[in-house]
Formats: sequence, C-alpha cells, structure tokens
Amino acid sequence: MEQVRVGIVGLGRLGKIHGQNLAYQIPKAKLCAACSIVPQELEFAKTQLGVQEVYGDYREMLEKAEIDAVVIVTTSSEHCWQIASALDAGKHVFCDKPLGVDVRQCLQAEAAVKRHPELAFMLGFMRRYDKSYAYAKQKIEAGEIGVPYMVKATGVDPEALAEGAIRFAKTSGGIFLDMAIHDIDLMRWFLGCEATEVYALGATFRHPGFREAGDDETGAALYRFENGGIGIIHVGRTAPHGYHVETEVIGTEGSIRISAVPEKNLAMLFNSAGAVTECVESFPERFEEAYLLEMREFIDCVRSGRKPGVSVSDGTKATVIGCATTEAWKKGALVKIQ
Amino acid sequence: MEQVRVGIVGLGRLGKIHGQNLAYQIPKAKLCAACSIVPQELEFAKTQLGVQEVYGDYREMLEKAEIDAVVIVTTSSEHCWQIASALDAGKHVFCDKPLGVDVRQCLQAEAAVKRHPELAFMLGFMRRYDKSYAYAKQKIEAGEIGVPYMVKATGVDPEALAEGAIRFAKTSGGIFLDMAIHDIDLMRWFLGCEATEVYALGATFRHPGFREAGDDETGAALYRFENGGIGIIHVGRTAPHGYHVETEVIGTEGSIRISAVPEKNLAMLFNSAGAVTECVESFPERFEEAYLLEMREFIDCVRSGRKPGVSVSDGTKATVIGCATTEAWKKGALVKIQ
Amino acid sequence: MEQVRVGIVGLGRLGKIHGQNLAYQIPKAKLCAACSIVPQELEFAKTQLGVQEVYGDYREMLEKAEIDAVVIVTTSSEHCWQIASALDAGKHVFCDKPLGVDVRQCLQAEAAVKRHPELAFMLGFMRRYDKSYAYAKQKIEAGEIGVPYMVKATGVDPEALAEGAIRFAKTSGGIFLDMAIHDIDLMRWFLGCEATEVYALGATFRHPGFREAGDDETGAALYRFENGGIGIIHVGRTAPHGYHVETEVIGTEGSIRISAVPEKNLAMLFNSAGAVTECVESFPERFEEAYLLEMREFIDCVRSGRKPGVSVSDGTKATVIGCATTEAWKKGALVKIQ
Amino acid sequence: MEQVRVGIVGLGRLGKIHGQNLAYQIPKAKLCAACSIVPQELEFAKTQLGVQEVYGDYREMLEKAEIDAVVIVTTSSEHCWQIASALDAGKHVFCDKPLGVDVRQCLQAEAAVKRHPELAFMLGFMRRYDKSYAYAKQKIEAGEIGVPYMVKATGVDPEALAEGAIRFAKTSGGIFLDMAIHDIDLMRWFLGCEATEVYALGATFRHPGFREAGDDETGAALYRFENGGIGIIHVGRTAPHGYHVETEVIGTEGSIRISAVPEKNLAMLFNSAGAVTECVESFPERFEEAYLLEMREFIDCVRSGRKPGVSVSDGTKATVIGCATTEAWKKGALVKIQ
Repeated sequence: MEQVRVGIVGLGRLGKIHGQNLAYQIPKAKLCAACSIVPQELEFAKTQLGVQEVYGDYREMLEKAEIDAVVIVTTSSEHCWQIASALDAGKHVFCDKPLGVDVRQCLQAEAAVKRHPELAFMLGFMRRYDKSYAYAKQKIEAGEIGVPYMVKATGVDPEALAEGAIRFAKTSGGIFLDMAIHDIDLMRWFLGCEATEVYALGATFRHPGFREAGDDETGAALYRFENGGIGIIHVGRTAPHGYHVETEVIGTEGSIRISAVPEKNLAMLFNSAGAVTECVESFPERFEEAYLLEMREFIDCVRSGRKPGVSVSDGTKATVIGCATTEAWKKGALVKIQ
Repeated sequence: MEQVRVGIVGLGRLGKIHGQNLAYQIPKAKLCAACSIVPQELEFAKTQLGVQEVYGDYREMLEKAEIDAVVIVTTSSEHCWQIASALDAGKHVFCDKPLGVDVRQCLQAEAAVKRHPELAFMLGFMRRYDKSYAYAKQKIEAGEIGVPYMVKATGVDPEALAEGAIRFAKTSGGIFLDMAIHDIDLMRWFLGCEATEVYALGATFRHPGFREAGDDETGAALYRFENGGIGIIHVGRTAPHGYHVETEVIGTEGSIRISAVPEKNLAMLFNSAGAVTECVESFPERFEEAYLLEMREFIDCVRSGRKPGVSVSDGTKATVIGCATTEAWKKGALVKIQ
Repeated sequence: MEQVRVGIVGLGRLGKIHGQNLAYQIPKAKLCAACSIVPQELEFAKTQLGVQEVYGDYREMLEKAEIDAVVIVTTSSEHCWQIASALDAGKHVFCDKPLGVDVRQCLQAEAAVKRHPELAFMLGFMRRYDKSYAYAKQKIEAGEIGVPYMVKATGVDPEALAEGAIRFAKTSGGIFLDMAIHDIDLMRWFLGCEATEVYALGATFRHPGFREAGDDETGAALYRFENGGIGIIHVGRTAPHGYHVETEVIGTEGSIRISAVPEKNLAMLFNSAGAVTECVESFPERFEEAYLLEMREFIDCVRSGRKPGVSVSDGTKATVIGCATTEAWKKGALVKIQ
Repeated sequence: MEQVRVGIVGLGRLGKIHGQNLAYQIPKAKLCAACSIVPQELEFAKTQLGVQEVYGDYREMLEKAEIDAVVIVTTSSEHCWQIASALDAGKHVFCDKPLGVDVRQCLQAEAAVKRHPELAFMLGFMRRYDKSYAYAKQKIEAGEIGVPYMVKATGVDPEALAEGAIRFAKTSGGIFLDMAIHDIDLMRWFLGCEATEVYALGATFRHPGFREAGDDETGAALYRFENGGIGIIHVGRTAPHGYHVETEVIGTEGSIRISAVPEKNLAMLFNSAGAVTECVESFPERFEEAYLLEMREFIDCVRSGRKPGVSVSDGTKATVIGCATTEAWKKGALVKIQ
C-alpha cells in the first residue's frame, strides 16, 4: 500500500487538527473523504483540506468512499458504533479518545475489533506519542527509575475555557470522564498494571455553574493498583496561566516529572514581575506534535500491518476506571474497580 | 525582660539544632540549663553549648533551674506531660512537633495551656517560619491567588535515611504520624479550615522491612475539608536525590508552588548527565533558617507577651488528622475526622 | 503557482534535512530534482526522497530541470556563484548560511539578487524562525523590553563533535566564521542596527588539535554597535552536556533569555545526581522545527511574491562582521567594521 | 582569646549589616566601639547595637577603645589609610571592598599588612563566602569541571536604585570600579590566575544622567588571562526584576552556573502572566548569609591565628584590574594590565 486513503468523520476543533495533519503532514496518507453533520465543517474540508468527497451521512461514506481507513473525531457517545461499522466495512480505524461513554459501548467496540484481526485499530491517547512522555516511558523501560510504583497526574484546563465547559457540563459525563481519561491512561501505561479501587472528591470555588450542572470544576482521585502501586489524579478547569498538564512517575530508584512548568517555549522574560515563563494556552498547542506523531504511527501501522501501541482494551479499561472514579465522586464512597 | 532564660530538654539531632540556636544565634535568649537522660547529650550541652547547669531529671530542672522558658525536644510520647509540668511550674513552653502521639495526651496539654493564659506556648511547626512558606502565606493573605481551595503536599525523606527509619518503624506510629504532620499543618494553615474526611493508601516497593514492621515506605492521602476544599498528601522515605519537600496551594485566581526542585543552592552544573541541580540532603539543611526563625519568634513572644502563631490547638488538630489518616490507611476505609 | 517545483543542491547532513522537509513536510513544495557531486547523496535522493531527476553537475540541473526554485546546501565557498547562476537562470533561491566565505563573494551574490528583483532570495538564518526566537522578536516589537541595547549570545557545540571539527579546522575559516554567524545575525536582528567595532579572543584548553590547525576551541567577542549598543558572543566546541545555544536580549524595560537550559524535552529526572535535565544533542535536534518553518516561509514567499525576512544583505553583513571578528582574534587587536 | 573585641567604623547601609552581625550573630565577637562622622549612625550604634563607646574620630577610637580588631566600612577612598593606622595600632583588620580607589593607596595598605604579619587582615569579598559560590569553588577544586578556563560574570543592580546611583556617579569611580570589583575578584578566584589585557565598552540607554556624569549605566569587558583563559563581565544598573548577580565558570569537563534566575526564595507563582519567580531586590537580600559567614571567618581567623582566604593582594589586584578596565572603557582601547 503506497498511500493510505483516509476518510475522516467529525471536523470540530480536534477533527480539524487531525484533518490538517492527514492532508498535509503525512505523505503516506491521502485524505480522500470527510463526513460531518455540520455543513461548515464540510465546507472547511473542501476549502482548507482539499477534500472533494464529502458526506453528511457516516454510513454513506463507509459505503461509497474509496478509502482504506477511517479517522473518527466525533462526539464521544458516537465513537463505538462508528468504530464497529467501519471495521465491519473493512476499514482500518483510528478513533479519538475516549473509546466510549459507558462500558457496554466499549465492549461492543472491543468485540468489533476482535472480529477483525486483519484490521488496525488505534485509540487516540496521543500523550503517549508526545516526545516528553515517550522519553519518560523509554527511561522507565531502560530501568532508570527502577520499578515505577506511583503516578501523580495533573491536568488543568485554562480559565479561558471555563465558560464553554460550563455549557457542556450537563452532558460531558462529569469532570473525571471529560478530563481525566488521558491521566488514567498514563497511570496504567506507566505503572503497567490495573487500578482496583478509587476514592474521589470534587470542588467548585470559582464557577458555581459547574455545580449547578451537577459537575465540579476541580476533581481529585486516589487509586490503588493491583500490584500495590498508587495513583493520584488532579483535574481542573480554572488555571489562570494556561493549560497545565503535569505528570510524575515515581520508582524505586528515581522519578521522572514531565512539565512542572508548562512552558510555551524556551524563552524567559525578566521584567518587573520577576522571571516569567509564559505557558501553553491549550491542548492543541501543548500536544501539537503528539497529534501528528500518533497519526503517523497509525498510518505506519496500517501500511505495515503492525498493531498500534494503544489498543481497544486500553480504551475500555480507561473508561471503566473513569466511570468508577465518577461513581466514587458522586457517592462520596470508595469504589472497587471491575 | 532583657534576656529570656531557657532550659532545654532533649538534645538529640533536632535538640542540638535548637540548643545551638538558643546558645549562639538569639541574643535575647540565654540557654541556662539542659536536661537529658543521655549522658553524652549533657556532655554536649557543657562543651558545645556552654551550659553549666545540666540535669538528668526533667522535674528537677523545672524545680531548680532559674529559667523563664522550657524548650522541649524529647521523644513525641513525652511531650504532653512535659508541657503541662513546665506550664504548671510557671515556665513558657516551646515544644517540638508533634504535640502528642494520641488525642487524649494532646487534650491534656491543651488544658494546661488554657490554665496558664499568662504563659506563652508555641508548637514547633517550623515550616510556617521558612521564608518560602511565609512568603506564600503572605501572598495568599494579600489575595494573590484568590480563595485557596486545594493543597498538594509532598514530603519524601532521602533514601540514605531509610535503614534508620526501618529500625524505628515499629514505634514511630506509622508513616503518616511520623512524616505527614507538617504537611497536615500546612494544609490547615493554607486552607484556613478543618479536614472532615480522609482516605489513605500505603505502598512498599523498595524496603520490605517497613512492611514487616507494619509500616509502609510511601503513603498517600486524600482529604475533604469542611468548606469543600481538597488536600492531597504524599509522603515517602526513598528519594534518591535528597530531601524532597514540596507544597502547592491552588486558589481561584492562581497558585503557588514551593520547591518543585529542592535545590541545595543556586548553582547548576552542566556535565555529561545534562543540567544538574544538586538537592538538599536532609531536613536540617532545608529548614536550617526556619528553625532559627521560629525560635526567635518564640523568644520574642515570651518577651513581648504576644501569643505565638502556632497554638496548642494546631497541635491537637494535626494529631487528630494524623490519627484519622493512619486509621484510613490501616483499615483501607474512608474515615470521618472528629 | 499551485506547487513550487524545487531542485536541491547538496545533500549532506543539513541538505538531507531540507530535502526531507521539501519532499514530505511542505505540501506546497514539490522536490523535483537533486544535485550532488557525491553519488551516495544522489542515491539518497532517489530512494529516500523519491526524486527521480538527479544531477552530478549543478549548471546542468539549472538548464534541464523543470524547477521554479533552487535550494543550495553546499559547501560555503560555493554558495555565491551558485546563487548568481540560479538567479540568472530565473530560479528563486534559498541558500543556507553563511552567504559566502569572503565579502567579495557576498557582494557578487548581492549584485545578482539586485539584478533579479522579480525572484525571491532567502538566506538560511533559521534561528529567526525558531519558535522561541520568533517569540522574543515579537515581544521586543511589542515593546515589552523597551529599547533593546545588548545581546549576549552563546553557542557551544557538543564535545561529541569536537574530533570531527578538528579535522575541518584548517579549512573552516576559524571558529568565528564557522560558529558565530548565527549569533552575529541574531545580534543585528534583535538590536536593529550595525556593529562598528570588535575585539575578540580565543582559547584552547582541551583539544590542542584546534590550536595546531590555527583555530581555537573557544572564542569570545565584544562588539560596539552604531547606536551605542553592545554585543557579546561566546562560541565553543566542548560542551559536555550537549548543544548549548543561548541568547539574551536586554532592553531598557526588561530582558528576554532563550534557552538558559537547552533542555531536550519537558522531562526532569530525579536521581542520585539530583534534579537532572537532559539537553539537546545537536543543532538538528534543537532547530528541527525551525528548519521546517524557514523552508515553509521560503515556499510561501515564492508563491505569494512576498520578500523573505532574511535578505542577501543580512548575509553580507554577517560575513563582514564574522571576518572582522576573525581579524580581531588573529591579530589581538580592536578592529573597525567596514 | 575568648571573644574578639571589635570596633566598627562606618555605619551606613552595609556598616549596619556588619554591625548587627557582630553585635548579635557572632557569639565569639563582641562589638565594643563604633565610629562615624554621622551622628545618626552613632545613635544607631547605641540604640540598635548596644554599643556604648562611640567616637566621631577614627584615630581616637584606635587609641582609646579596648578592642582587638577593627571593621572598616567607610567610603572607599578612606579604606587604605584606615587599614594602615589600625594595623599600626596593633588591631586586626577587616575592610570592606574595594581595598582602595587607586593602586598607590592599595600598595600602602599592602605595605602595612606586610609590616604586621602577626595581625589578621581580611578584605570583604563576601561572595566567596556565599554558599553557592563556595559550593562552586569546592566542585572546581574537586575537579568536577576539569580545568576552568572561562568566567562569565553578570552583576546588574535593580532599576529601583538607579536614581541614587546617578547622584553618586561623578565620584563613584565609574561603573567598573563601582560595580565590577566583585566580579573581577571572582574571575581571579575561579580561574586561579591573573588578567593581562582588557577591552571594555559602556552604554547608556535609559538614564542619560549617568552619561552626563561621565559614567555609563551598563558596562561590558572582555579579559585575557595569563594562562590563555577568558573573562567576560557585564555590569549594569537597570534590572527591572531586581538584583541580578549571575556567574558561570566553564571548564574542560563541564561548567557551573550560579543564579541564572536570582530567585527570592523557593516559591513559584502561577498566575495570568505565566509561571513567575520573584527575584531578590538588593545585595543585602542576596548576600545576607554571605556577609555573616565572611565575618564569622574573620573572627575565627583572629581567634585562631589562621590567615583569611581573601588577602590584601587580592584587593590590590582587583583594583589594578578595575582601573585598567576603566581606562579601556574611557579610551576605547585595549589596555595591558600591569
């Protein structure tokens, strides 16, 4: 296969990023088709991505478009059936995170992946492809921190996005499903085993709108892992300095911390405030390269027959943990996982 | 009162620090008497601190020594009765942390303090007097981070001390009472309210000796505060890089982080490993100045009649929370505080 | 012009980077032809860049290849005549730094550029396109540091490359022409005016081979600028920690420092050495993105008719300053520039 | 000698610091007498330092006061004769930097020191006693950076002090004598050899008052050392972020940088500006501990008969280099040193 022909579904904020990477940054991919229920997104596909073949109906794209692979960047609740349909139509599938919004959906997607061992399936946990996270994983595999036994993960969205988040708070599934899924995946990835128990808390001090919608603006969770390891997650929505994603992996011989200062670039300003480092504003800025690298990996896997490093079961497990965390937070109780 | 005449009891590692500060660094204090059940410590008092009046019996020192104040740096389990005796003997009291090892003891000390409103009592939560922590508190009081609602505290002892810690593991009260008491105090101090619930986990991956002694080498706890705030504590005993104490206070308008890199000084080495910052080795190195500043504050309070910023009730509450954390860790259950 | 058809000449270390960017990372460019006197490089063009049309003779490529633009990545001494030939053949030209190895050559290139105002010419001072440097420039233009009046620039190659550099020391033109040309350009760019005088020193303490070849392993130069500003350059070849490029721009209201720690990524390791940040190993690693962004800019300029931000005269002036610095270093004397 | 009895002369800003250290922070010193031509300073000595014996005339203090040592913190131009008088009166001498304002004076002081080998003389290059600088020296002596061959030193006073500095600009000796003397000492100390040649530049972009007084607000100098090493000094008076002292020592195996960010403490703020580190405001804040440690060293030397690490000849040589730098700056010419 010289070039992988790709159809994309969903061209919102993140869909546009994937679309541009596929159209212009990955020579071995050819973006041939686009699907969306939003007319402006199809217009974007035509004018900005040079895609002539556009669809308002996903199933129609699967039937008619001459494509090898589908890239799914739709609303989370649509992911699983779209995965299954695409696989059943013989297409390789890349799907953005999360796999699904409940475990039942995820298991259906898992079943579809199992039905089609001949096809590549990859889930978009792009942080694993970020250079700093990949470096940490490599150091850990090289034994530099001994046995990793604790992960402390922080993910706080910028205050600038809070108003928008409030509008979606009722349908987002709550802060843990909406924001912690990457951190959950990183915990599992770095610790190499499964969480068995969780306790979680939420807090809202700045934007009562979250609480009114049944959500919280800040969440914290404490996890026990099956090997005795520990995970701590802190997610939030009100960082004044930008988009703060930070992760620490602690092992018996040392630890690795990624991005204690989520610096925008290598410049430091010295002014009357002191020594100032501007921070990244958003996840697309922070993970720009990771989005490209994960998609290159997907295309490479399709071309070579290799299996992507992020499996469908990684998606199910993250959703299971996310749901358990949500239950612990809602009930104020310890929750066993699985 | 020109100079405050002080008697010290206990001249172990920390007692020596307090003794030297009193003898040589605080002009308004005069170290007149020392008490210890360890003969070498009394020898140290004579030869190194220039104290001629030494006692093997604490009550005897209280009776005979012409002192205004007592500084207590003995084993934790002795603190409370020694506090009460000293106050009843008309002495001002500085007592190192923790106040006591159980709540009953603490309440007896509280009662003694209440009986003697004319005397100063101060508990040695010296971190509050560290320049960086005091700066953070000042910034918070000036409103720079809005309403503080979350504290993330880390305190990890150097690997170099692990073997010693294992020997004391059976009698230390467990990792949370032994190591988290300062972090508990900082949470209360920065958030300005009380913890109401805790869940905690322990882990041991490097030194099975801790587990064999019924302790753990790492602990993590998640706290709910009465105003809806959140606290996270991570304590451990195996930092390869030195003594890692780090604290983050998050508010509605910003956050303050203290000592993400526990640097030894302002030097950075560039060598074949990269850019390297050596870290502090121990708590006396990290908090050398704080120990001096807190003792100056105590002496000032005695001389001026001001009440010290750290009260006996701060000690009781920290112990209450430490005990609840220990219970949560031991039982693997959520524990209500008070 | 839908796509700019490009021929590349020179496919050494940096030529390969430009070649891959043109072939795969810039949709609006089409790499059609390659020229080299090294057969393996032409083989690389065919197999790795998918270029079928290859030439051993540069003039032949200019005559026969159907290309709109030429990208010159040859030995510095060949740049100027190749620029003139390409322009006279009606091709847009991107040429890597330095413009030429002496001023006479540079003026010939300048003359050729002036003869062809209809064609784009761009010099590869890629640091201007690095995100951190571009950010600094933008902050300066926004007035954030007031009037910039001093630049302190450091560029030290990794020790790992020293042996190779010694082999080229006799023909490199000396450390200032070989290594300081980017720093010279940055000084001019940030200060917005010209250097008028220079004093320079060299030192060799680690590798006598440099001194034996008439070169030095370390150089330092101090520049007076026409508006009274000051420049300081430090270049070297023996950094044990990696590739250290650092620049500070100081203004009347503040300063900006870029890359005081030339970190490899956002990870920090905590191990027995302390807190360790690994550093970038080489200029391709440090400026990977800048090489892509400058080439995108060139292609955009060709397509849109805009003039690139780095002009031929920037190249001449940097060479003039580099030669004056070399003269100051060799003679141990103050040298007037121009 | 149980306690060293000290008389201090000069109680300006820095004299007060030394006075307080002597009175309250150094048990082995006893501040017995004070001398000043400023009545308020004598009042300060009485009320704040508890010194009862005060003098308006320096020679009178030398004659009448029962003191073992003199601490000189007067105007630079008075240092040398005061040193000689004190030594001839049989007193040990600590004198603040610089030794003198011209070389002739310094040599007279040197002669007096040679006349009195039985007495301790120490010059106040307190940076050598700062923990970070002492650590760097120790690392260098342990061979961690191989042979040190380059020092880059920066010292910029806060903008807040600029107005005051302008008032003294006519009599300060110029920016290099006024500000670079510590940096000159550090270069000599770290490189372990002497400077032989200097070129220097000045610049004034913010405060024309400096230029009007024949001074400059910024200075830069480039030094050749006798072993082939290189020194670079940058001094200034307009740092908006505080007091910026930074030093880098580069060796054949690595380098050490001190205080790239002149942080006030270990706290970092995250707010809408980004990640912000407040900086130290002034030299007393930055070097508070170094002032104490150097005075302790002096007192220890007096008591033990040891010779202090900073000799009178260190003072002469720094002044020689400072004068040569000033000459290079004024004449715009290379100047041989000695």
